[in-house]
Amino acid sequence: MSALGDGMHALVRRLYPLCRSITGNGVRDTLRIIGEHLDLHVHEVPTGAQVLDWTVPQEWNIRDAYIARDGERVVDFQRLNLHVVGYSVPVERTMPLEELRGHLHTLPDQPDLVPYRTSYYAPTWGFCLAQSTLDEMPEGDYEVRIDATLANGSLTYAEHVVRGQVDDEVIVSCHVCHPSLANDNMAGVAVAVELAKSLVNPYYTYRFIFAPGTIGAITWLARNRDRVDRVKHGIVLACAGDRGSLTYKQSRRGDADIDRVMAHVLRDRPHEIREFSPYGYDERQYCSPGFNLGVGSLTRTPYAGYPEYHTSGDNPDFVTPESLVDTLAVCREAVEVLDRNRTYVNLSPYGEPQLGKRGLYESLGGRSDAKDAQLAMLWVLNLSDGTNDLLTIADRARLPFAAVAAAADALHAAGLLKD
Amino acid sequence: MSALGDGMHALVRRLYPLCRSITGNGVRDTLRIIGEHLDLHVHEVPTGAQVLDWTVPQEWNIRDAYIARDGERVVDFQRLNLHVVGYSVPVERTMPLEELRGHLHTLPDQPDLVPYRTSYYAPTWGFCLAQSTLDEMPEGDYEVRIDATLANGSLTYAEHVVRGQVDDEVIVSCHVCHPSLANDNMAGVAVAVELAKSLVNPYYTYRFIFAPGTIGAITWLARNRDRVDRVKHGIVLACAGDRGSLTYKQSRRGDADIDRVMAHVLRDRPHEIREFSPYGYDERQYCSPGFNLGVGSLTRTPYAGYPEYHTSGDNPDFVTPESLVDTLAVCREAVEVLDRNRTYVNLSPYGEPQLGKRGLYESLGGRSDAKDAQLAMLWVLNLSDGTNDLLTIADRARLPFAAVAAAADALHAAGLLKD
Amino acid sequence: MSALGDGMHALVRRLYPLCRSITGNGVRDTLRIIGEHLDLHVHEVPTGAQVLDWTVPQEWNIRDAYIARDGERVVDFQRLNLHVVGYSVPVERTMPLEELRGHLHTLPDQPDLVPYRTSYYAPTWGFCLAQSTLDEMPEGDYEVRIDATLANGSLTYAEHVVRGQVDDEVIVSCHVCHPSLANDNMAGVAVAVELAKSLVNPYYTYRFIFAPGTIGAITWLARNRDRVDRVKHGIVLACAGDRGSLTYKQSRRGDADIDRVMAHVLRDRPHEIREFSPYGYDERQYCSPGFNLGVGSLTRTPYAGYPEYHTSGDNPDFVTPESLVDTLAVCREAVEVLDRNRTYVNLSPYGEPQLGKRGLYESLGGRSDAKDAQLAMLWVLNLSDGTNDLLTIADRARLPFAAVAAAADALHAAGLLKD
Repeated sequence: MSALGDGMHALVRRLYPLCRSITGNGVRDTLRIIGEHLDLHVHEVPTGAQVLDWTVPQEWNIRDAYIARDGERVVDFQRLNLHVVGYSVPVERTMPLEELRGHLHTLPDQPDLVPYRTSYYAPTWGFCLAQSTLDEMPEGDYEVRIDATLANGSLTYAEHVVRGQVDDEVIVSCHVCHPSLANDNMAGVAVAVELAKSLVNPYYTYRFIFAPGTIGAITWLARNRDRVDRVKHGIVLACAGDRGSLTYKQSRRGDADIDRVMAHVLRDRPHEIREFSPYGYDERQYCSPGFNLGVGSLTRTPYAGYPEYHTSGDNPDFVTPESLVDTLAVCREAVEVLDRNRTYVNLSPYGEPQLGKRGLYESLGGRSDAKDAQLAMLWVLNLSDGTNDLLTIADRARLPFAAVAAAADALHAAGLLKD
Repeated sequence: MSALGDGMHALVRRLYPLCRSITGNGVRDTLRIIGEHLDLHVHEVPTGAQVLDWTVPQEWNIRDAYIARDGERVVDFQRLNLHVVGYSVPVERTMPLEELRGHLHTLPDQPDLVPYRTSYYAPTWGFCLAQSTLDEMPEGDYEVRIDATLANGSLTYAEHVVRGQVDDEVIVSCHVCHPSLANDNMAGVAVAVELAKSLVNPYYTYRFIFAPGTIGAITWLARNRDRVDRVKHGIVLACAGDRGSLTYKQSRRGDADIDRVMAHVLRDRPHEIREFSPYGYDERQYCSPGFNLGVGSLTRTPYAGYPEYHTSGDNPDFVTPESLVDTLAVCREAVEVLDRNRTYVNLSPYGEPQLGKRGLYESLGGRSDAKDAQLAMLWVLNLSDGTNDLLTIADRARLPFAAVAAAADALHAAGLLKD
Repeated sequence: MSALGDGMHALVRRLYPLCRSITGNGVRDTLRIIGEHLDLHVHEVPTGAQVLDWTVPQEWNIRDAYIARDGERVVDFQRLNLHVVGYSVPVERTMPLEELRGHLHTLPDQPDLVPYRTSYYAPTWGFCLAQSTLDEMPEGDYEVRIDATLANGSLTYAEHVVRGQVDDEVIVSCHVCHPSLANDNMAGVAVAVELAKSLVNPYYTYRFIFAPGTIGAITWLARNRDRVDRVKHGIVLACAGDRGSLTYKQSRRGDADIDRVMAHVLRDRPHEIREFSPYGYDERQYCSPGFNLGVGSLTRTPYAGYPEYHTSGDNPDFVTPESLVDTLAVCREAVEVLDRNRTYVNLSPYGEPQLGKRGLYESLGGRSDAKDAQLAMLWVLNLSDGTNDLLTIADRARLPFAAVAAAADALHAAGLLKD
């Protein structure tokens, strides 16, 4: 487990420095590294393509940026890519601090942290810096340079598919558009990579989507619109590595299978379950009313819920191997429940069937400490009338899903249940 | 606000002394004063008219009443009209206290207060007095006189209608049959008068009903039986001016629009919400199972919930201008929600529509303190699938209704919603 | 009440020593004694009969059993019949303690109590004894004897039927297969006997079933399969006499009439209500998914919920006359609610009917302490729209069922309600 956590943390650290945005080479480099772990299908969608209500924007690439005084860089993109407002248009000028201030973004309440800002759909430019840095900048002229290009190109996203026994799909979606932010969302990427690697002959087909936030999910939905009804369940993975406990945000439906599965898996862990809201990550798109997919969102401390959120404080030290391992464990348990959940019909529904003669019941009677395995069989038999799936039974019985699924397997093998 | 409160309180004080009952000149005088503020349509329904299961009773009018000893009035109707049991038959006799006692009503536990009693549907007579007064009355003969008439006449009630954009109606109903009781219900009358005056070109048609309790509401229902299905929402206003916090009693349906509206409006105020019960005020009639209208009841301290209830303690000092203003404010907010509540359909339901290109979204991204206005737009878009009205959305989003309604207006103007 | 409790307790003490099992003379002797109180129909179902998924087993009868050392009985069936594992095959051997240990059952955590064990469906033998007894048994040879027979015969159960006004049935079911255990279930038997004796011309037909656990209920169901749809409500009575408060376990349906009735009857008593689970007593069979009857289970401390459960500690001193009387009182109240519960339709649903002219309403108005009887009438009138039964109305009104039923009777007599 330590090796597993260390491996995921190493991937977070490796991906962290890349300057990602919603388009451009930062995303491509990120996908290339993920591709060292998983077999990826990378898609390039050209600038100008219509995707649902949106249009794929121009591609943004940046080589360098700084604010300098007397030739010395005061704010330097090379040291931290958060210093440049994402999608800034190029600029190369000298201007007094007074004029520059309109392009500077700080966090006065967190004076040592650099904020993360973007301006994807309005042409402007800007710098982000610590308030403490700004406080030390004397009035006077500064050289300002952003060596970036905004030009026709493409939007890049990738898929990794693990074929299952059925074509019905589970999607796992991670946004890959944030530059140097570790928990948000290289932690989600690292967990998704290990989850994908752990799947062996699953029941469902699992589709992992690595795409820029909002426009990436919208692009995926636009290009898969006629296949979307294959998506039976899904999880948006984000903020997967901080020290907080787990938070599951329900799908818009609120009672989708994934909502019940996550509640069950989290039941005995410290956790919080939140109702759906139409802000956060790409569950916004998957759960837009036209699609209304059974997709929830799993995080540790949720969206905008920690002081380091969208600041330079969200660096690799903010993420721990233990938390990554814990998030992965929950994902794996959820996969197991999703894959094994079935609805059976008891073929001997009048009275209890005699389990003893089938070798399924302990012969010595009178004891009051009935075993989980035997209780699980009684629950499965009693509730399997075609309306309750195994997960419902496990919840009603307050038994682990695995015990209930094992009981169902035994009863099925004995000819007492049918699918 | 002070002028508003003072004005309402002045109306309470002016109406307080009139000797109202379920019929007679006290009600007529009351409606005449209300008519100085509102354009009233006064109805007279003759004695003997059949109204649903009831019959309009004879008209009762009283000129004087007293209990005197040696020519000196010990109990005097002229000082407080509660002293006479409502609908008492005339009497003019001399009798010993011993015999008189069977006609006297006191409150032994509240010895200085005079109770309010009536005997509408059984022919008898009686006096109400303070226990302390009775305790000081020596044995011996008393002159007893009630100069009243019970004769064929009519039952009087009035309506004030504010025409709206649609014929669907909201009713606001106040009982006007109690003699000198201020909170119950001249306070309700005063709030209703100001509420009516505040309505300008509303969406719904608002109908204010000023009628004697029980028989008045029953008469109105009997005479409007074929129009009752126009009544979409309603409020019975009573006990609207005491110092207690607000209480809303749900309609019989429990989930009528008015129930949701009042819960929303009261959400951030000290308040209590009670389930429907078939006693209280005229919601009993509007919510009888044959009509089952969406009519709730708004009071401050509810029916029978304060020691001064139905006693001489319920005088104008028991009512405050501030409480009247507060009750009115809640009514006005409820009217605004009722009038603006709609159910929309998102015309761009696949993924989120791009709000930025329509000027509806702030261009700088990354901030975690999204504004109410933007959240409201996301909520309206996400939940407007034809099944959720704006009030439901405001409740789900925990946003003020006005913010959600404004967001809907903006989205509608941008062509993203249809009715 | 004391005589009643003493009588029930005497029956428990008289039945306690008999060596009951799922078949055999212990059950017959038990039914013979019950038959001194109730007119019983005793059924004998032969060994080998197929009953649902089960087969009636051979009949077991035991005359004597012991473990002796040097001719002296160390463990003696004659002193306590729990000492023999129920359904033990015969044995007559001398063996060293070392070998005997595999056949001995103790409760190490309750060293002075003898456990109750059975081995109904696997041929073996064994003894139960106190751990403290075992600790004092020296190594060496012991004479072991179980003088029992397992042979073709029959399974015995009995019914007592109280004919009602309708053929629809309420069943009351008690298991009679446990040897010397008092609370479980001779207490249930004693309460059922008194309940049966108390029924005079009931509305429903009441059927009392005294049968061995599991196989007895299954046999009854098998032989009444085509009549089971007459069973509208039912109670499994067990553990009816210990000092704990009452526990009601819901039927599988969870919202059956009996579930609502028991919740109402227990409302003002200390009690616990548990959701259905597929273990416990014969509700397991009545609530198997194919039958799914409205049958719950009433106990005091429930199944496996007290340390004396299924041990020699469950002796007649563990049961009190007061608890038996209290359980009986609840059963009687439940019967009254079941028998009087109806769904009416208000024939005057538009506005309130005028109760005064029908002599149903007190004539003096204005009082705030309306009586339960008048409130009950208002509630019945308001909610009797054909969807609410009297029990629902009593729960909504928070009034005693008897007050609501009396109000309904008065309104029905006045022609205001129809069935």
